Amino acid sequence: MTTKKLLIQGGTVVSDSDVAPYDIVIEGDHIAAHGLRGDFDPTSFDEVFDATGLLVLPGLVDPHVHFDAPFMGSKTVHDFHTGTASAAYGGITTVISFSTQPKGDSLLRNLEEHEQKANGQAYVDWSIHGILLDSSEQTLTEIPKLVEAGVPTYKCFTTYRHSDRLMDDDSMLQVLKTTAESGGMLMVHCENDAILEYRLQRELAQGNTSWIYHARSRPNSAENVAIQRVIDLMKEERAPVYIVHASTAESVRIIQKAQSEGDPIHCETCTHYLILTEDLLNTELGHLFICSPPLRTQRDIDALWRASRVGPIEVVSSDDAGLPSADRTRLGEGRFDKVPNGMPGVEPRLTMLYTEGVRKNRISLPRLVSLSASNPARLFGLFPQKGSLSPGSDADIVLFDPNIEWTMSAKTIHMNTDFCPFEGIDVFGKPKTVLCRGEVVIRDYELVGSPGHGRRVFRKLDSSFID
Amino acid sequence: MTTKKLLIQGGTVVSDSDVAPYDIVIEGDHIAAHGLRGDFDPTSFDEVFDATGLLVLPGLVDPHVHFDAPFMGSKTVHDFHTGTASAAYGGITTVISFSTQPKGDSLLRNLEEHEQKANGQAYVDWSIHGILLDSSEQTLTEIPKLVEAGVPTYKCFTTYRHSDRLMDDDSMLQVLKTTAESGGMLMVHCENDAILEYRLQRELAQGNTSWIYHARSRPNSAENVAIQRVIDLMKEERAPVYIVHASTAESVRIIQKAQSEGDPIHCETCTHYLILTEDLLNTELGHLFICSPPLRTQRDIDALWRASRVGPIEVVSSDDAGLPSADRTRLGEGRFDKVPNGMPGVEPRLTMLYTEGVRKNRISLPRLVSLSASNPARLFGLFPQKGSLSPGSDADIVLFDPNIEWTMSAKTIHMNTDFCPFEGIDVFGKPKTVLCRGEVVIRDYELVGSPGHGRRVFRKLDSSFID
Amino acid sequence: MTTKKLLIQGGTVVSDSDVAPYDIVIEGDHIAAHGLRGDFDPTSFDEVFDATGLLVLPGLVDPHVHFDAPFMGSKTVHDFHTGTASAAYGGITTVISFSTQPKGDSLLRNLEEHEQKANGQAYVDWSIHGILLDSSEQTLTEIPKLVEAGVPTYKCFTTYRHSDRLMDDDSMLQVLKTTAESGGMLMVHCENDAILEYRLQRELAQGNTSWIYHARSRPNSAENVAIQRVIDLMKEERAPVYIVHASTAESVRIIQKAQSEGDPIHCETCTHYLILTEDLLNTELGHLFICSPPLRTQRDIDALWRASRVGPIEVVSSDDAGLPSADRTRLGEGRFDKVPNGMPGVEPRLTMLYTEGVRKNRISLPRLVSLSASNPARLFGLFPQKGSLSPGSDADIVLFDPNIEWTMSAKTIHMNTDFCPFEGIDVFGKPKTVLCRGEVVIRDYELVGSPGHGRRVFRKLDSSFID
Amino acid sequence: MTTKKLLIQGGTVVSDSDVAPYDIVIEGDHIAAHGLRGDFDPTSFDEVFDATGLLVLPGLVDPHVHFDAPFMGSKTVHDFHTGTASAAYGGITTVISFSTQPKGDSLLRNLEEHEQKANGQAYVDWSIHGILLDSSEQTLTEIPKLVEAGVPTYKCFTTYRHSDRLMDDDSMLQVLKTTAESGGMLMVHCENDAILEYRLQRELAQGNTSWIYHARSRPNSAENVAIQRVIDLMKEERAPVYIVHASTAESVRIIQKAQSEGDPIHCETCTHYLILTEDLLNTELGHLFICSPPLRTQRDIDALWRASRVGPIEVVSSDDAGLPSADRTRLGEGRFDKVPNGMPGVEPRLTMLYTEGVRKNRISLPRLVSLSASNPARLFGLFPQKGSLSPGSDADIVLFDPNIEWTMSAKTIHMNTDFCPFEGIDVFGKPKTVLCRGEVVIRDYELVGSPGHGRRVFRKLDSSFID
Repeated sequence: MTTKKLLIQGGTVVSDSDVAPYDIVIEGDHIAAHGLRGDFDPTSFDEVFDATGLLVLPGLVDPHVHFDAPFMGSKTVHDFHTGTASAAYGGITTVISFSTQPKGDSLLRNLEEHEQKANGQAYVDWSIHGILLDSSEQTLTEIPKLVEAGVPTYKCFTTYRHSDRLMDDDSMLQVLKTTAESGGMLMVHCENDAILEYRLQRELAQGNTSWIYHARSRPNSAENVAIQRVIDLMKEERAPVYIVHASTAESVRIIQKAQSEGDPIHCETCTHYLILTEDLLNTELGHLFICSPPLRTQRDIDALWRASRVGPIEVVSSDDAGLPSADRTRLGEGRFDKVPNGMPGVEPRLTMLYTEGVRKNRISLPRLVSLSASNPARLFGLFPQKGSLSPGSDADIVLFDPNIEWTMSAKTIHMNTDFCPFEGIDVFGKPKTVLCRGEVVIRDYELVGSPGHGRRVFRKLDSSFID
Repeated sequence: MTTKKLLIQGGTVVSDSDVAPYDIVIEGDHIAAHGLRGDFDPTSFDEVFDATGLLVLPGLVDPHVHFDAPFMGSKTVHDFHTGTASAAYGGITTVISFSTQPKGDSLLRNLEEHEQKANGQAYVDWSIHGILLDSSEQTLTEIPKLVEAGVPTYKCFTTYRHSDRLMDDDSMLQVLKTTAESGGMLMVHCENDAILEYRLQRELAQGNTSWIYHARSRPNSAENVAIQRVIDLMKEERAPVYIVHASTAESVRIIQKAQSEGDPIHCETCTHYLILTEDLLNTELGHLFICSPPLRTQRDIDALWRASRVGPIEVVSSDDAGLPSADRTRLGEGRFDKVPNGMPGVEPRLTMLYTEGVRKNRISLPRLVSLSASNPARLFGLFPQKGSLSPGSDADIVLFDPNIEWTMSAKTIHMNTDFCPFEGIDVFGKPKTVLCRGEVVIRDYELVGSPGHGRRVFRKLDSSFID
Repeated sequence: MTTKKLLIQGGTVVSDSDVAPYDIVIEGDHIAAHGLRGDFDPTSFDEVFDATGLLVLPGLVDPHVHFDAPFMGSKTVHDFHTGTASAAYGGITTVISFSTQPKGDSLLRNLEEHEQKANGQAYVDWSIHGILLDSSEQTLTEIPKLVEAGVPTYKCFTTYRHSDRLMDDDSMLQVLKTTAESGGMLMVHCENDAILEYRLQRELAQGNTSWIYHARSRPNSAENVAIQRVIDLMKEERAPVYIVHASTAESVRIIQKAQSEGDPIHCETCTHYLILTEDLLNTELGHLFICSPPLRTQRDIDALWRASRVGPIEVVSSDDAGLPSADRTRLGEGRFDKVPNGMPGVEPRLTMLYTEGVRKNRISLPRLVSLSASNPARLFGLFPQKGSLSPGSDADIVLFDPNIEWTMSAKTIHMNTDFCPFEGIDVFGKPKTVLCRGEVVIRDYELVGSPGHGRRVFRKLDSSFID
Repeated sequence: MTTKKLLIQGGTVVSDSDVAPYDIVIEGDHIAAHGLRGDFDPTSFDEVFDATGLLVLPGLVDPHVHFDAPFMGSKTVHDFHTGTASAAYGGITTVISFSTQPKGDSLLRNLEEHEQKANGQAYVDWSIHGILLDSSEQTLTEIPKLVEAGVPTYKCFTTYRHSDRLMDDDSMLQVLKTTAESGGMLMVHCENDAILEYRLQRELAQGNTSWIYHARSRPNSAENVAIQRVIDLMKEERAPVYIVHASTAESVRIIQKAQSEGDPIHCETCTHYLILTEDLLNTELGHLFICSPPLRTQRDIDALWRASRVGPIEVVSSDDAGLPSADRTRLGEGRFDKVPNGMPGVEPRLTMLYTEGVRKNRISLPRLVSLSASNPARLFGLFPQKGSLSPGSDADIVLFDPNIEWTMSAKTIHMNTDFCPFEGIDVFGKPKTVLCRGEVVIRDYELVGSPGHGRRVFRKLDSSFID
């Protein structure tokens, strides 16, 4: 059997450092060559994609989704089947989902179970992160095994005492030490739990239960303080750290200061923190916008865009964690503290970044590629297999039509939910064609891939990107 | 006549964001295609370069040299002929030299004269920067014309009152305004002249004339203060600024702070500030190491390497400004303040950065390419024509042999001087082959190019890299 | 002839560190003893002042007034006669006025002439500061003589190029050196002249001439930058520096940072910067509120009060520099840049600080005494002769009635002008009795002193307060 | 019976803002009057103290001693009898000791028991601070009662988990809230317990047990981080906080930054942190120098002196917590982690501050009085009864002979221990006469007071000094 050869012709290729007009040759599952427009003879290819007027991007990497995850008495709307379908519609060819085990259970066994859930379901490639609930001997012993098994990143929480997920300073020091020894990277959800709990009880005592008090009881300071504490501990036991969903204007200054002192610290923000404000919590459907950290203010949004442009933000993820609207309403009981947290977002990410970022001149096209594809690939051990259009890289490619104008809505997208956080926003651009390892997943804006195509990707961190 | 086709095969290609094994096709003067090793049939090419075991880099850009420049009663050792020859030996395929006009003379006329000097002399491509000596109406009128003529960058000095080159605050505000309006970028030599003059007179009054007092009379604070002042003024009239030869540990913190506040400020350091210390001024031949700003201390070196790795340093230039040793000895008269300033360095730059940076694990290979090729191309309006290996870019390519070990010395290199600042240092790596627009300039470590091949490059700034 | 003995009985004594009920004995011109209420037998005194219900303060020191000073074609409203009368009404028993000499004239001769102007005119004690217009050899030679003559403080300007008063960096370094050697202290008016000039020309070019453009053309940044520059130079040549009329929120942070690094830097603000905003320039009589630096915003006011409470502001002066309203209107010609700058304020200072500071809980009573009496006495070489109620100090005492309520107005006070910057503000408190060296100057709220009583005070700096 | 009248004549009186020659009249237990030298007729007094050549200071306040306190299996060397005797020898007329209750016991009952211990034992006046071990309902309820009972200050620990004294973030937020409501002030021992524990276990695991590892396992960062955390929480629930024994160069910068942002935060350092370095732990008797935080380096000492001169250090206490040397040797078992912590120091404090501070020109005499008498009186609710020489204040007075030269040693002082931390240092100055409430306690350098004279002082905070 011969290898299939494809040609992408006439497009404008966007890498994380360049925008240039050239053609791309795909052989089988990988990119084989680049050439000037017209260099390659179309007749010698099995299929030619006309990319005239389109942007040719590396397939996006979304390093922060929650698929098939039970949460606060509900369950996330996306499993690997529906989630990777939506991801493909959104130009994403690799997702990394979090794998939450029951307290005390083995990280490794959980990994296996997760693999079974994903098996035969995924339209695009995937991996998972571990989640650390403690620093028990079992946990510390399993971390190097996780790393060896291709899962070199895992998250812990500085909050959520009530669901027994809080990692205290003692444990974090142990985990940082093990991380440094194992070649892994620790991801941290940063909100100071004592401040949250103190505020929560105060608001409840005063009968403040409406949605907006979710934001009032989780102030910027709680996030800022928690990030500073992680840095304090990391200065004691130096290991790579990745701050998930930085959402405040101050957070990025704190992280930048640490970076400038040589600390191996990285951070992401999420699409919604760049676009939506806490004012949405003042509406009747405010409970659907509850997430943690909460939506912030325009001042924070401005600071996060700047940090996305010049650093220290290296990644914009979706933190896709939608929950059925009916569950949120029912379980919430009209009280902000009872609503299961989290919003869906895996599909709108590229279009929203293009519309709000590139079209509004806040980031350049190469920076969009850095934030959504190359940097997550580099930081999570996927580069240059993913996040790159160099010869030899996987043929994960998005042909993005930048000029199509449409309205973002739960009705116009394909996520498995009736709620879209960006409902009603007029947007630009949509993926026309998406290839994952040389196979067409989206063709003419529609899903044509097969659910068994996506495979787990083995990840291995590259210290030159992380340290 | 058919276009010549070349193949570079078997090498390891280093871009500013990637290290990967692939082959490169050249057609005529430009890069035509990339492909996986073995994809292209060698027999269909006019010439095949075996790059096995070699690093394939974009041709380096040195944005800071002084060729054919009269200075303090002497004249720089390199003209466009000898300078571009040395540059080629050092893997550099584009140089940008400073064009100093007599006070009151026209910037544009000076540009023409410079062009005549370079005509038929250059082995590699070149451009020039203007130099602003005042903010006269003539100067302000000519700036937009310079920009239109492809010279969108020009330098001013915060010092050198005695040679009438000092630009005061009033003038700088005018120049910044004109720069913002013209789409140019202002380069600034930052040392506070009042502090320098005060220290100079104090040392002289005390009879302190030995070489080391050059450094004592130009303290870190003089540079730091001057940089802060430029930033203060730029906050008044926002325009792109490029700080030349940042040399102190504090300077990079000051610049980073401004960047983090959104100021369009950029900076370079030079090879010698990353490697040599002021202790050399305590030797008998100390006068040959006199440059401004002066060599600093190990503490500064450490800070500059870190800043080269994580920012804000974006470029490492050579500031090649060698002067005949005999002139320096004669004119210096044993007094630090009479020695003409400046050191040669265009040729050793790549090897020194590779030896001291990459081999000592201070910067990665892609970062070496950023600092020496891609970033100077981007910041000075040459990208992606220069500093890039993408299809369509000029075929400026270095095949660098990383494993060859040798000793840096005036005798082992080709600069037009008996003095090498890095004399006696054991180094790794040397350019084996250098192509400039598809023509071989260095072959098997030796100069084979022709002095008329180098052309002036028209430069146009790209605001997405600068603002 | 026997020495007169006075008793101040029943009052609440406020020092800069304490508020306590005790009685004070005066013998001749000095304070002789303190005692508990009732300790001293009233019948053995020549006069007994019933201070029941009154606050007993050390006589205030106003270290920043401009008496008998020609300015921009006009002349200040107060000479030593009318100025010290108003001062006495305002509880001030020592003023320090600026002595401006014609350019090139001798500092010492100017001092003599000034002494003649004051002779036989002053109701309260006085001294002067020198003004340095250059760093000529004459100036540098005279500085130590000024210090020896009891005038150890002198001011320079970083602005006012058009009236030839600008001191550049070179000169300031010379002056700082001479100051360090002479035991003096340099006062600096900080506004960056290049920024001012640039803004001025821009506003004028756009036809913006109304009063508010005075503030627009002298932004916070101009002051902040100028203060930072003085600090930069002082780090080169360490000498005591006193920043006059700090008016911006940022200025106090810059100064505090320098203090915390051990720099001998001090600062004052003025009454009007603590109370009035630039909004007043938007009114028809806005030209009467023109001063330099200009009035700022509420944000600045808030920061200045905090800095007055916890530092680094050590002094609140009046900068009394009123000019006849008619002159301001006439010379101003409806253009902000032609209006002679400066406002009167020597009399309202104590009452305004008490009303806006103490009654609004922004500063404590001891802090009011520090800011207006003890600290200026300490910093300007008058302590403990002035600014103190200790035995041995001059019997300069204010019996301040804190409960009297009245309306501040040109009609209710005694300054030699029809303009009061605080017109119409309802205030608390007024000096009932003021003694200067044991002699009653104000009795029952009315001037009863004699114009020949005030004497020049010899000043000598005490390094323990300054360094 | 008539009230006894005393005269202190001919001395140099030092207050916290002044140094001046005057005489002081004492009537009964309080200061009645001040007068110029010679104003009062010696023949009308019951006793006249000739203070010629002596400094007259307010009696010192030591706000941090541990008398009669069990600790780590031993007990502090000083009880109220021996401790107040040593204090008197050291010029201290008021001590505040910590009252440690067993976990779960009542703060109030403990206060009573403490009062009984002190009854009839004290030579000078005294008070106590509470200690908070938790934020139980009992504790929170008792705090306002403590404040009402004249004990408005109480300490908690961020460390010492093994002795069950660690206060976590949740508890501290509760305690801060109650403190704000009650008008109290929270004192905090700041060392981050997780870092300490982590380092401790690491050193022990490596067999590092010699004395110096006490310092190695309690790094500057542990203290700095803990202080920052207290500030973080205090920004959530604003209440006055007093950081005990700040010992690092960084700590004072962190505290100063918080102060400059308006936080009501205060701090002390202790005599030994200003004089001794950790090098002493490298000696055979190093275990006797073990205290927490540990002794630091010369760099820290330099920073602490500067902060004592210009802020933010407001107080220098002794933290007198000596333990019998035999116990330290025996219980320590040659392992740093087993040695009971703490050093004696109540007596040497004044002489050491005078010798190392005033004589070495690091602080002025008035600043010595601020740091050791006036400020502790102000901050702990004793002012102006204590810490002041104003009429009406308690007649607590030290006649300090500044010129006597002697050698500090356990043999030359009177503490109840064979160990003096400052052994062998040549010093200047010694209290010649000490009065407490008008009664002579030290006369001609010897103890003549009676152990029942000292009384508990009721304390009430004055918000104008604290907020």
